[in-house]
Amino acid sequence: MPSIFTRIAEREIPGYFVAESEDFFAILDINPLQKGHTLVVPKMEVDYIFNLPDELLGNYFQFSKRVAKAIENVVACDRIGVAVVGLEVPHAHIHLIPINNIDDMNFSRPKLSVDKDELRQIAEDISAKFI
Amino acid sequence: MPSIFTRIAEREIPGYFVAESEDFFAILDINPLQKGHTLVVPKMEVDYIFNLPDELLGNYFQFSKRVAKAIENVVACDRIGVAVVGLEVPHAHIHLIPINNIDDMNFSRPKLSVDKDELRQIAEDISAKFI
Repeated sequence: MPSIFTRIAEREIPGYFVAESEDFFAILDINPLQKGHTLVVPKMEVDYIFNLPDELLGNYFQFSKRVAKAIENVVACDRIGVAVVGLEVPHAHIHLIPINNIDDMNFSRPKLSVDKDELRQIAEDISAKFI
Repeated sequence: MPSIFTRIAEREIPGYFVAESEDFFAILDINPLQKGHTLVVPKMEVDYIFNLPDELLGNYFQFSKRVAKAIENVVACDRIGVAVVGLEVPHAHIHLIPINNIDDMNFSRPKLSVDKDELRQIAEDISAKFI
C-alpha cells in the first residue's frame, strides 16, 4: 500500500505544496512546530533516509537547501533547523523548521494549530520564493 | 580565530574521532543525548549548513550515511536520527543520534554523562565499523 506521502505526491490526498522536482517534493507540515515547518520527501518510497542511494541522497539535501532558502525568505527566523526522525511514517522525510532557539525544534512540544487559509498562504509565499 | 571544531580537526584539542576524510570528520559528542551520539563536521569552516556549496553538501550527507551505518553496527537502536541546529557553535555540524523514540533526540533533555574510557571505547568500536 502506498505511503501517505506517495498518496500526497500523486494528489490522492491534498497537501500544501511548496516545491516539487522529478525526484522530490516539499509540503507544509500540517501540525507544525513553527510556522513554515516543511517536510521534504523523496518520491522513492524508502523507509530509512540512510537507505537512499548515494547520488539521490546528495541531490535530496541539495533540493532541501533550495527549499530552506525559500522558507528563510518568508518566515522570520535565525536559521532553518533540520531533523530526520523517521519513527512514525515509513517513508523518509526531512523536517525543515524555522528556529530561533533550540527548543523551537523540540518534537515533544505541543504542535501549533494553524488554520487552512494561513497554511495555504504560507505555502504560496514559500513556493513563490523557491528557485 | 579558528572554531573549536577546526581546532579539534587540527589536533589542537582532543576529540574522540570515529571517521575522517579529506573534507569531513566525525567525533563523539562528549555531552551526548544517547551513547554513540556523533557530530559530523565539514572541514570548511561554514557557520550555516545551507551555505555549503552544493557538491560539498551532497558529499557531506553521503559521508554522514557511512558514519550512521557504522554507529548502527555498534549501538543498539531503531535507527539513526539526524539533527542540524547550529545555534551554538558557528561551524556547521550534523548530529547523528541513535534513537528508539522521538524523545531520544530532544535537545532540551539533560545530557548523558559518559566517562572518558567508555567514550574512547565507543569511538574505537564505531571507527572499526566505518567503511
